Order: sequence, then structure tokens, then C-alpha cells
Amino acid sequence: MTTIGIIGGGQLGRMLAQAGSTLGCRFLILDPSPSACAGGVGELLVGQYDDEARLVELSRRADVVTVEFENVPPDAARYLAALLPVHPSPSALATARDRLFEKEAFRRFHIPIADFRSVSSEEELRRAGEELGYPCFLKTRVFGYDGRGQWVLHGQEDITAAFDALGKVPLVCEARVPFEAEVSLVAARNPQGEFRFYPLNVNVHEKGVLRFSRPNAWPVTPDLQSRAEALMEKLLVGLDYVGVLAVELFVVNGELVANEMAPRVHNSGHHTIEGSRTSQFENQVRAILGLPLGDTTPLAPVAMVNLLGEVPDMGALLKMKDVHVHAYGKSASPGRKVGHVTVRADSEDELDAKLDAVATIVCPELAAKVPRRTKA
Amino acid sequence: MTTIGIIGGGQLGRMLAQAGSTLGCRFLILDPSPSACAGGVGELLVGQYDDEARLVELSRRADVVTVEFENVPPDAARYLAALLPVHPSPSALATARDRLFEKEAFRRFHIPIADFRSVSSEEELRRAGEELGYPCFLKTRVFGYDGRGQWVLHGQEDITAAFDALGKVPLVCEARVPFEAEVSLVAARNPQGEFRFYPLNVNVHEKGVLRFSRPNAWPVTPDLQSRAEALMEKLLVGLDYVGVLAVELFVVNGELVANEMAPRVHNSGHHTIEGSRTSQFENQVRAILGLPLGDTTPLAPVAMVNLLGEVPDMGALLKMKDVHVHAYGKSASPGRKVGHVTVRADSEDELDAKLDAVATIVCPELAAKVPRRTKA
Repeated sequence: MTTIGIIGGGQLGRMLAQAGSTLGCRFLILDPSPSACAGGVGELLVGQYDDEARLVELSRRADVVTVEFENVPPDAARYLAALLPVHPSPSALATARDRLFEKEAFRRFHIPIADFRSVSSEEELRRAGEELGYPCFLKTRVFGYDGRGQWVLHGQEDITAAFDALGKVPLVCEARVPFEAEVSLVAARNPQGEFRFYPLNVNVHEKGVLRFSRPNAWPVTPDLQSRAEALMEKLLVGLDYVGVLAVELFVVNGELVANEMAPRVHNSGHHTIEGSRTSQFENQVRAILGLPLGDTTPLAPVAMVNLLGEVPDMGALLKMKDVHVHAYGKSASPGRKVGHVTVRADSEDELDAKLDAVATIVCPELAAKVPRRTKA
Repeated sequence: MTTIGIIGGGQLGRMLAQAGSTLGCRFLILDPSPSACAGGVGELLVGQYDDEARLVELSRRADVVTVEFENVPPDAARYLAALLPVHPSPSALATARDRLFEKEAFRRFHIPIADFRSVSSEEELRRAGEELGYPCFLKTRVFGYDGRGQWVLHGQEDITAAFDALGKVPLVCEARVPFEAEVSLVAARNPQGEFRFYPLNVNVHEKGVLRFSRPNAWPVTPDLQSRAEALMEKLLVGLDYVGVLAVELFVVNGELVANEMAPRVHNSGHHTIEGSRTSQFENQVRAILGLPLGDTTPLAPVAMVNLLGEVPDMGALLKMKDVHVHAYGKSASPGRKVGHVTVRADSEDELDAKLDAVATIVCPELAAKVPRRTKA
């Protein structure tokens, strides 16, 4: 029996273990918290990500190691990779972990991105603001997610406060991109070099956190899908990537501009559990085991709604046909991702109606922002 | 968070835990073996099913208890039911556990069955053979499954050997039914009295063990489905049943004759994971938690092939579009159920072709017995 080690025991690790257990795998999950939610479906190793004794145990008991988040300490990833296969590779992880390295990789592969400057002093930030224009975004190079570690600069007057707040660590400043929509592409590649792409998702964020994801909504077209796949292929090949990779992109005047990549399964791909022939989680497991990748053509129209803070009344949701509730077994806490709902339908019109009904239960204040098949 | 106790840690418990973890539940699984395969996806309590200390622990830590097999010691089920909800109820379990009680229940609910006699002596067996005719079947009242605890009597000359082999325990002797097909109906009922029925499966057994299951194959018709549902409804209501119940039936001259019931998720319902809007496993979890039951209309044509003995080359199977391998994480052993494959297709014709291809890999010697949409 194959044992898969996962660094990180959040909901992504939990869903990876759920998918991989179907293929007969066991999971060993390293996380600093004894209440990490992936522990409910696999064996938890409690320890820091750079705890040497735990890394040794992982290397001895697992056949292959993967990750559920990008902030793996680079030394830990390299240490493990010297002892057993680690997918994605430590160098791919190091690239995706650091906004500067990530942007340099996008440039190296000729993938359009917003203009940016590396910033390590208030003076550099002032110059960046002048060159990039306002508003622009100051971000920490590492450890930012869900809108954390970011500051919007509306003008010169914000520079001192922003630098005081974030300036203890290396930063990048990014030009603002006037986008029509935010989309993401999730793809998988195995060691044999086989690729699979999922349909482009249209994503709606609120305060930096994903709320809705829907494949094939406006402004996605077959042409946009092809261009996103071409761009993803450059990344997968360029990084010699093994596993699932997600890229978040802006659509700007119909063109794709890369925002960031995530070297792992992605929140915007959760609906592939019910909406695809093979979920992103199963394809991650297949990829790291060197198995053939599974078909990613859609099974039915789907969309996803995140559950933040607490899981609402399950009964009301489960009463609806083909509405699938995923609860991560996490305690309630304001803004915390505690679950998601996948809505599946027999047609896009039916999906529109069901998505409205679900949003009305889950987040009535955002119901008007649900992604649509056509422009609002 | 809800904790569900399961008595029995085989593949049914494993798939229950996989489905229930999606709804945020945790699982405590009682099994005598420390290597019980459900332990890979939930917490295993190692102990005999009547180990009082383990039952106390289960009652303290679980919110509700269910079972993955029918041979739960009746005293253990009653002991737990005095302390917390147990679904299905101890009386439903006791009925399904014993072939005599089961047959009496079918008769009580006016459900046709093959004629039978209770047997406790060689003399009674001789009389049963004369009255029922030969061939007939001698079976132990409890602990029989997958063809075990059974003896075929071809004539009077077999009586002594059969009784010597099985006669240390209470027995029933059953008339042979000249059936055209074996089918099964899987259904769920929750405490609110809501029902859901899955499509009738056509099952092909080999040496008493299920090999293939396919909904809506020959000789299933909408009329046969309705009659099976009517019969199932009598059982569910009559037993005041909560959970998933399966009934195996013979089709005899187009009429349904009940063979046996299983008070649990059933091997012939495994394809509901990919083929239904809601799997039998999720509906079992919903039922025992008192949640609304999920829709059971088919999502796509499906069929299932059991993997016996060992899991074959996964790569060859996973290369095929919409072919889903379930490996239970069990060690290989001749005839052991170690996994199953669900084949899903966009049409019944496509399903025919894919099922042939899968059977050719998994069990080439049985490929000609695959259930078909129309009579062979």
C-alpha cells in the first residue's frame, strides 16, 4: 500500500486524503496543530514544518511527499527531496512561494503580468509608486494569502504607513490592473509529461477571499480557454512541474494577465469533485504517483460557494437536489474557510437558479455578485 | 462536530467514513482487527463486537452508531441503543441477521419468497427435501455471506453430508427458484419517514460472490422498478427502518421473489458514488443524522466490477476515461474483495463497450457474463 505524506493539514490536505484513500492510499499529514482538520481522515504527525525528527519520520514512512500550501520552508522541502520523491519539486515550490521569484518566472516564460518593482526601502517604494502610478499594491514577498500581507497605496501620502506596516520583510510593489474579471486555470502534469487542463473558472472575491467560483461563466470563451492553456503549458514545462498547479489571472480588455500561481490544488477547483470526470484532488494523487491523469472534461454545469465563518443550516442546503455540502470539520471563527458548497445542475439555466437559491442561504449580502453565464 | 460510530471496519465502513467526512463528520470504527481497512480513514477502536469496555467508549464518544454488516451481536446493539441512537434499530438488525426471522418478516409484509422450512434435525431436513423438491438449499440461519454457510442438496443422498457439515447450528432449507436474473434494490429512509430508492441493479454472481452490478440492465423495466419499490416501502415502513436497506430479489417469469435483505449499504450500490446525485454512503450518513435524504436519480449510465483477490494494474484502468478505481487498502488474498471499479459513460452503448474493456482487464474469464441493456 502506498503512503503519501502531505505537508500541511488544512482542508486541502483533507480533501487530498479523501480522494487518495479511494485509490487505496494511506496519508501521513504533518501540521503544527493537533486539531488540523485533515487529521480526521488520515494520520496526523504534529510538528513544525521544519521539525527534523518529524521530517525524518515522514521520509521513513511515506513513499512520496506533496504539499497543500506554498509556504513550505525551502530547507525542509530540499531535505525531504534528498530522501524520497517530493512533488512539486523544491525549486517549483520556492518559485511559487516568493512573489518576486514568481513574477520573474512569469517573465522568463513570456507570460504577461502587471508591472512591478522589488522594494526594500521607503525610498524604493516612493520611486515604485511614481513609476507604477497610483493606486498600486504593496505586498510581502512571502506568507501572503487571502488578501493578507497587502496594502493598497492610493498616493504618496500612504507610503510611510504602508512601509511601516510591512517593511520589516522583503516586498514587491505592483501596478494596478483594471480587470473585467478574475479567472483561474487549474491543471495537472505527471512525471511522464502528460497534461490535463480544467475549464477556466470565473472567481468572485470579497475582501481578498474567494466566495464564488464558476467554470465557463462570462467572460470565458473557448478562445480564452485556449490562451490560458497555452500559458499554463509554458509554466508546467518551464518549471518541470509534477502535480496540480493553479494560476490566477486577470482578464484585461479580453487579454490574460497573470496574477499569481499556487503550486497545489486550489479553492477554485473544489467543484471538480462533482463537476469533473476526475477531481483536482484525484489528479494530484495520480500525478505524484506517476499514474495516468484522469479526464477533466465537465460532467455537468457546476459552481462553488465558499462557507466562511461557520457552516450554515445543512438541512436547508441538503434539501436541494444535487447541492453538495463539504464541511471541513473546523471550528467556527469569523471569516475562516470552514466548508464549501458545490451546486450541480442539468443545464446552465438551472444552475443560475440553484446558485441564487444557495447564495441566498449562505451569503445573502453577496447574492448579486454570483458569476453568470452572460455579462450582467 | 458529529462523531459517528460504525460497528465493523471493512470496505463498507471505509466508504461510509469517506462519504461522511465530506459532511464534516468524524468516525470511530469498532473492529477486532488492528488492520481493518476502514482504519485508514477514521479512528479504529480495536476490540470484539461485544467487548464491553469498547462499547462503553463508543457510546461515550459517538453521537450515533451504525453498522456495516448484519452480524452484530444482538446484545451489543441493544446495549448501545439504551445509551445513544443506533440506526438501523437493534430489532431491524436482529431480523436481517437471521434467515428465519428475515423470511418471517417477508411473509408478514406479504412479500413473495421461495418456500422454506426451518431445520434442526436430519429428519426435518429429509422432510423438507421431500416437500420442497430437489435441488434445494440448506443454509445456516446466521453468519452466512458470499455463499458461505450454504449447501446444495441434489437429492436424498446429500442429506447426511449436508447435515453433518452445517447441522451444529440452526438451519433453514429453501426451495430452488428458477430465476431469469438476480436484481437488488437499495433504498434509504430517514427518521422523518422520507424515502429514496435507487435504480434496480442487475447482479451477476460467480461462486456466490458478486462480480458485476448494473442498474437498468435487462430485465429491468419501469414496471419492475415500481414493483420493487412498492415491496421495499413495505419493508422500510414495516421495520420502522432508518438508514440504507438493500434487498436481493430473483426475477422469476417477470415476477419478483425476495431472496434476502442487508441492513446496510450494499456492494450492488457502490456505483452510486459516481452514478447517482447522492451515493448510498452519503444517504446512509444523512439518514442516521436525521438530515434530508439526497436525490437518487441517475447522473449517467454506470456499472460496477468487483476486484477480487488483488487490485490489477491500476494504470491500465485509469487510462480509460471515466473509469473509477476504488482500492480498499486491503492485502491481497484469493477471492477477497479488495476493491471495485465503476465505469461511467455518456450513453448505455458507450457503457457496453467500456464495461467489456474493463472486464477484459479485470476478469477476462467472465467477460461474457457482463450484464447488458438488452437480453443476450
